[in-house]
Amino acid sequence: MSLFTTQKSRRVAQVSEENLIEIIVHSLGRACPPFPAGPGGDCAIIPQTEKARYRVSTIDSVIVGRHFDSSCSGKLAGRKLVERNLSDLAASGAKPKDALLSLMLGPNVDLDWLKEFAQAVGQSARRAGLRINGGDVCQIQAGQFSATLSVQGFSQRVLTRTTCRKDDRLFVTGELGGSRLGHHLNFRARISEGLWLANQKAVTACTDLSDGLLKDLPSLIGKKYDALVDLEKLPMRRAAHTIAQQSGRKAWQHALQDGEDYELLFCVKAKESSSFARKFKKHFPRTRLTEIGLIQVGQGLARDQKTHRPFSGKGFGHFA
Amino acid sequence: MSLFTTQKSRRVAQVSEENLIEIIVHSLGRACPPFPAGPGGDCAIIPQTEKARYRVSTIDSVIVGRHFDSSCSGKLAGRKLVERNLSDLAASGAKPKDALLSLMLGPNVDLDWLKEFAQAVGQSARRAGLRINGGDVCQIQAGQFSATLSVQGFSQRVLTRTTCRKDDRLFVTGELGGSRLGHHLNFRARISEGLWLANQKAVTACTDLSDGLLKDLPSLIGKKYDALVDLEKLPMRRAAHTIAQQSGRKAWQHALQDGEDYELLFCVKAKESSSFARKFKKHFPRTRLTEIGLIQVGQGLARDQKTHRPFSGKGFGHFA
Repeated sequence: MSLFTTQKSRRVAQVSEENLIEIIVHSLGRACPPFPAGPGGDCAIIPQTEKARYRVSTIDSVIVGRHFDSSCSGKLAGRKLVERNLSDLAASGAKPKDALLSLMLGPNVDLDWLKEFAQAVGQSARRAGLRINGGDVCQIQAGQFSATLSVQGFSQRVLTRTTCRKDDRLFVTGELGGSRLGHHLNFRARISEGLWLANQKAVTACTDLSDGLLKDLPSLIGKKYDALVDLEKLPMRRAAHTIAQQSGRKAWQHALQDGEDYELLFCVKAKESSSFARKFKKHFPRTRLTEIGLIQVGQGLARDQKTHRPFSGKGFGHFA
Repeated sequence: MSLFTTQKSRRVAQVSEENLIEIIVHSLGRACPPFPAGPGGDCAIIPQTEKARYRVSTIDSVIVGRHFDSSCSGKLAGRKLVERNLSDLAASGAKPKDALLSLMLGPNVDLDWLKEFAQAVGQSARRAGLRINGGDVCQIQAGQFSATLSVQGFSQRVLTRTTCRKDDRLFVTGELGGSRLGHHLNFRARISEGLWLANQKAVTACTDLSDGLLKDLPSLIGKKYDALVDLEKLPMRRAAHTIAQQSGRKAWQHALQDGEDYELLFCVKAKESSSFARKFKKHFPRTRLTEIGLIQVGQGLARDQKTHRPFSGKGFGHFA
């Protein structure tokens, strides 16, 4: 089953807007709370019960042809939409709470694909404690599909970018590179790790890796620091090696530049970095953690720790 | 200036993603708070200061070719995006607080048009006390543009649908019909009225008119009541008459069915309806208020008050 269908009876255009919304809400399942917190009103009405100091808010989309292709299953596309957003919340150390889902559907979108998509959205949401409280559906041109999720989370202490200090150690979770061979459709946001990191005073700044280390690192450290990266320590995904064989470039170049890793990249105070790493490994024995560099006074550049030369390659720029 | 340009130097594809975001943030102006509440992080970090009982959450989009056409100014398109969302908040009686803006841009979108769009978003937001705290930008195919806004508001007492009672009187603000002759691009959401209505105990249910009275009325009253509508009382926009001359239909048919009125439709307890109307007119001397019918036990139908026959016409269904 692919995203678009030529069978008239399977097209979303065959059902009324009301029925379409019913089908989506039903597929979202228990992630969707009842009215008035859920669908059925002009707005979702959410009782304010969270005592946390901060509400943490983000929005992200998946578009066919850009974030997945039309042969991708609804399950993987739906999961990617939710996990992309959750990865941003993870980077801020926030607990997911509620979300709104906006769908733009060409008339030839396959109803069964859409059900699978909404089921996956519901399942990924529930796994993370996230509710899908409402949304909107619009018709667009045939052969097109996009889905946007806006998410609210809560946190008592937040992690942000541009708050690192001189000598901080640079850490990354998981592995990097070659994401487009599969990882980009099959990852889980590091929600638990992010929540835990936000409670560690040794952690000074954090971001998630979506555009590639070389592009995300400068936004993490800000304009007054440089990051020295030890290329030999980069944790490389097996796919980074596979893709390097095809591209003729080095695996570490893919690890630096490919994007869509959805791992956490963060800074830890130098003095506490060893004890921090031990503590992390105790809490998350199955999450790889690697110290890949350190922070120096500088001008917002990522440099090779050996040569001190800035890396010149670009990340995964949407408009580059 | 229209939405798309053939001049290479004016295309959004000419600037990097970072510059594009800078341009948008700059155009949003003071509606956009500084980091970390505003752009620059993985999420917007919003201190929880609102003591209201409910957070009220909604999401809505504008798409070229659907909600405006490519000759429409960025100013009117941007305003429409914000006011559409605010109209949903108004229907819930909520005070606008913060929002996220997601843009999907074809490479040939005109940068100056986009600036005008973002300026208008910022201006409409500021007028209503709404901040644009973050967002996302994606590239899509040439000749396409969509913008989605998700909004959070707050309320101590909310208005909802399906909470009316037998004998309630049905009221509507403003005038109806013919919106596509201009009103749909040039309206202001009834935020002040909605906030005030939420504080009147006589008001039992409320919605905003986006899909046309005949379609929105059943969702307002729910499945256990009917609404008897007095056609002679329908407040008709001059454009409803103009468009009726073109369509060969009656002006009241347009008032019932056209959609995009963005007026408030609500129910008031019968006993208090006269004093309510006096109070409303005192508070909002410039907002037309009309009692157009009443609620009876029934099955979710809108009926003609004279003949008691259900109206059979459909509203402005997105997928109909």
